[in-house]
Amino acid sequence: MSLTIAALREAPGENRVALSPEVVRKLVKGEFQVLIETGAGDRSFYPDAVFEAAGAKICDRQAAIQGADVLATIGQPGKDVVDQLKAGQTLLGLLQPLTDLDYVQELAAKKVNALAFELLPRTVSRAQTMDVLSSQASVAGYKAALLAADRFSRYLPMMITAAGTAKPTKVLVLGTGVAGLQAIGTAKRLGAMVSGYDIRPASRGEVESLGATFLTTSVSATGEGGYARALTPEETAQQQAELAAFIAQNDVIITTAQVPGRRPPLLVTQKSVDAAKAGTLFIDLAASALGGNVAGSQPDKTVTTAQQAQIIGAGDMASQLPASASDMFAKNVQAVLTAIVQDGKLVLDVDDEVIGELLATTNGEIISSRVRDALKLP
Amino acid sequence: MSLTIAALREAPGENRVALSPEVVRKLVKGEFQVLIETGAGDRSFYPDAVFEAAGAKICDRQAAIQGADVLATIGQPGKDVVDQLKAGQTLLGLLQPLTDLDYVQELAAKKVNALAFELLPRTVSRAQTMDVLSSQASVAGYKAALLAADRFSRYLPMMITAAGTAKPTKVLVLGTGVAGLQAIGTAKRLGAMVSGYDIRPASRGEVESLGATFLTTSVSATGEGGYARALTPEETAQQQAELAAFIAQNDVIITTAQVPGRRPPLLVTQKSVDAAKAGTLFIDLAASALGGNVAGSQPDKTVTTAQQAQIIGAGDMASQLPASASDMFAKNVQAVLTAIVQDGKLVLDVDDEVIGELLATTNGEIISSRVRDALKLP
Repeated sequence: MSLTIAALREAPGENRVALSPEVVRKLVKGEFQVLIETGAGDRSFYPDAVFEAAGAKICDRQAAIQGADVLATIGQPGKDVVDQLKAGQTLLGLLQPLTDLDYVQELAAKKVNALAFELLPRTVSRAQTMDVLSSQASVAGYKAALLAADRFSRYLPMMITAAGTAKPTKVLVLGTGVAGLQAIGTAKRLGAMVSGYDIRPASRGEVESLGATFLTTSVSATGEGGYARALTPEETAQQQAELAAFIAQNDVIITTAQVPGRRPPLLVTQKSVDAAKAGTLFIDLAASALGGNVAGSQPDKTVTTAQQAQIIGAGDMASQLPASASDMFAKNVQAVLTAIVQDGKLVLDVDDEVIGELLATTNGEIISSRVRDALKLP
Repeated sequence: MSLTIAALREAPGENRVALSPEVVRKLVKGEFQVLIETGAGDRSFYPDAVFEAAGAKICDRQAAIQGADVLATIGQPGKDVVDQLKAGQTLLGLLQPLTDLDYVQELAAKKVNALAFELLPRTVSRAQTMDVLSSQASVAGYKAALLAADRFSRYLPMMITAAGTAKPTKVLVLGTGVAGLQAIGTAKRLGAMVSGYDIRPASRGEVESLGATFLTTSVSATGEGGYARALTPEETAQQQAELAAFIAQNDVIITTAQVPGRRPPLLVTQKSVDAAKAGTLFIDLAASALGGNVAGSQPDKTVTTAQQAQIIGAGDMASQLPASASDMFAKNVQAVLTAIVQDGKLVLDVDDEVIGELLATTNGEIISSRVRDALKLP
């Protein structure tokens, strides 16, 4: 008896799909059956026929939910799905276990095993192949630089023509994690004059190796797990003031600073936005319902200031490069499956340093210490 | 007494402006006064204040029209402008003298001097600094490659990540004139696997020097003035059949083939469009009211086929990079002004090998032999 993996059509606005034809091909060669909901890959340009050719069975939503031993998903499945889940089924995806506590409690109550990518221990090297946050941030950084190039009113590269020379565009990337580095690399490819800013001084080497200038302020804040720590109000004010000078010297500003589970830090103040000259472009990858890195940014909207600067709230960039993003996501899913299946059976080892962390709930219990902390459980 | 140059706010949908702040600065240092209509630069992110700081006088539309010795324009000014023009005034821009014969006859009747960039002798080397078709095609090619990168569902470059390797996207550029070469160069910068096709075998060197693969068919058609000649129906059929094989092997197809004053050649047949797999992206730079290079393309629209391929009608790409495109256009305008002003006076020398060609009408007469041919005048 083989295990069945299923993927559903995601919610409207989410273009990705949690399994790709390439990964399906590998899964069916192994010990898995694969169910794909009709139309699940449409928005990633993977039609049903392509999944079918890869060995998946195309079925309706209910059949996919009910037939799945493991349901792979990009975002939280909605109430229609959760209502149908049964004890012992496993859910794997971005389940927001630290910010949507009701949801994780409901999964526990239903005795669903919930593997949440947000809980992955990102500094353990064998977890890297499962790191959805990293793979999707990389897509987002690439896409942000392209969006900048497409929306900005000038050439990014220097151009030498019969009619004269155009200067290269100055691009500043705030936050040089995975997304920031990929944005820097892509803007450099396009010939822009790029600088990267981070409050972690250790980022200098990575930024400079891409041929960009490294900027930092007098505030330094290396934190846990590779993230920056949260700053004090005094440090924040000092950082914002020092950043304002960098911002004023650039044409395109891409911001990527996120602190897991918290409001993103405000890096570009209203004063900097108001001072920005006509045509300046801000791309805020942290734009979310919680706020963003740029004052006044709104998720999925372009805001034009009185001075004709533009602020693009670009929190869902990975979904905008859906085929590549799905490919990467699916490979991360496959890596988790490889880790949790032994001899054709699902083994969720709570003592494993990776899987034990990834597991939010199993057997009706919330076992993740991070989720328990958030719920103030002992 | 100095000469006055003016630029107006262009028609809706046209984001460019015919003079840039940089060129205004140079003109006012010389022997010119400059009038800019209120808001003319808004859509290029050049606010009135920036033009004013450069030395222009900001005024209303009527004052700009009436005060101009030379009116520089991107596209044909509308009836409201033409009605106000007086004998002896000079109009300089893309005036469609070969395709809109009524318009050029009206300018002649009003004794307006019309300098039309479409008539520039493009193979004369001193005309290169005035070559608007070339400068704007260069912008369009750059923008087409960026649009492709932004709209395509996958990474253009090869990506090596913890979760695996993504293959580079295959980009095919049909027509390797100025726009095509710039599209090739930009797609190469982004890391795509690029090939360029042209029916002029002499293009091979330019394409290969950009690191792209040169493709050609058994049909060869070098024509006049650097353009390809029009093909016979038999040659067209043969070319289309041979191209179909190239198209089927690529993910992104950018088409740039234009023949001045004629319907653009159909390079991608309906059969090729229908055979294209999901996600294939066609960008048709020749898309116009006359038709385009891709079957079914529509100007300024995205058409999705039954197989989920996309066809983007991208005939106005230069207008979508408005600041850089305006800068280049304005430099071309400045080069013409330099050629037609001597000792502070306008001298339109009909015997000059460049200006004589550029002039469609002067002193109430249509003097361009190309326009006279189109009008069947002796």
